[in-house]
Amino acid sequence: MKIASLDYDEYLARVQTFHGTLAPGLIIGGFMVDAAMKNLPPGDFFDAISETAICLPDAIQMLTPCSIGNRWLKIFDYGKFAITLYEKYGGQGIRVYVDPARLEQWPEIKNWFMKLAPKNEQDTEKLLDEIKRAGSSIVGMHSVQVKHEHLKKKKMGPSGICPVCGEAYPLRDGDTCRPCRGDIPYESTGSNSGGA
Amino acid sequence: MKIASLDYDEYLARVQTFHGTLAPGLIIGGFMVDAAMKNLPPGDFFDAISETAICLPDAIQMLTPCSIGNRWLKIFDYGKFAITLYEKYGGQGIRVYVDPARLEQWPEIKNWFMKLAPKNEQDTEKLLDEIKRAGSSIVGMHSVQVKHEHLKKKKMGPSGICPVCGEAYPLRDGDTCRPCRGDIPYESTGSNSGGA
Repeated sequence: MKIASLDYDEYLARVQTFHGTLAPGLIIGGFMVDAAMKNLPPGDFFDAISETAICLPDAIQMLTPCSIGNRWLKIFDYGKFAITLYEKYGGQGIRVYVDPARLEQWPEIKNWFMKLAPKNEQDTEKLLDEIKRAGSSIVGMHSVQVKHEHLKKKKMGPSGICPVCGEAYPLRDGDTCRPCRGDIPYESTGSNSGGA
Repeated sequence: MKIASLDYDEYLARVQTFHGTLAPGLIIGGFMVDAAMKNLPPGDFFDAISETAICLPDAIQMLTPCSIGNRWLKIFDYGKFAITLYEKYGGQGIRVYVDPARLEQWPEIKNWFMKLAPKNEQDTEKLLDEIKRAGSSIVGMHSVQVKHEHLKKKKMGPSGICPVCGEAYPLRDGDTCRPCRGDIPYESTGSNSGGA
């Protein structure tokens, strides 16, 4: 049993290293990426979409050349357990999702996926066993055409120095950078210093 | 010369594998993550913020346990070249950014970072050489306190089956999933089929 080019146990070991925990969603995600890769439309270069920010982006980053930082992976955070791989210039792609209708014979996966039982009442060992045996039989897939506006790479445009903080920022954002207008997740608590 | 626990050339090889290209921003990002790790406040577990979606998230994912999919890495896409590592429960952290004032002695880095010259007029070899020699001398850093609302893990809440597409979705989104209300980056072009 393989997930992309990796043996199943090798994939699990990489999940542990990259993701920190053996998350059930990331193991299923491995089968989903594998299923998508086996059903790609013609093309040489493929970008990816994840419809959730949880787990699935890591399966894509581990098994394909697409990452968040190279922008070949985009996240549309709908809370849906689905991925799309698509030809990056034309947008023809394959979308793969977990199909609830296919979970009837896998009670532990259904419990976990539909959150039917609280986490402490779920049987992790049984869940992982069902995931391994089910493989990609629990996914549905269909062809998609990614909309034109999502195929274009958004350019950041010219940079300038923010007159408030002195750091570089995209001039399209206005007279100062967004954090200096209050859109900021932290408060500064110490004075500036430099690196080595 | 090391970047976190990796030799410089080993880091470059991993950049090539994970990111697909030897992006200058990701090499500088390695020095930034390394500088942050050497200046952490007390604590055992650290989450990360990137203030751009380009390059820097990959440096964090390659060098720390934080990834997009495990949600220990958050992206606030301000287009600013800055990262923060912070103690995940209390929020005390260190923010590291490229300081334009420190780029005066590195003309190629300044050209690239401030986009002063078109890409085809930049000297890549000279740029990579300057990046290696500059190391973390081009970064500034300061202590920060991440705001309380960003320390809490957002729960997705109960799931249901969308009556339109039949897939699972977070019930907090209403009577149907968001894609079925038109918030969708693709159009379906083929009928459903299952995995192996």
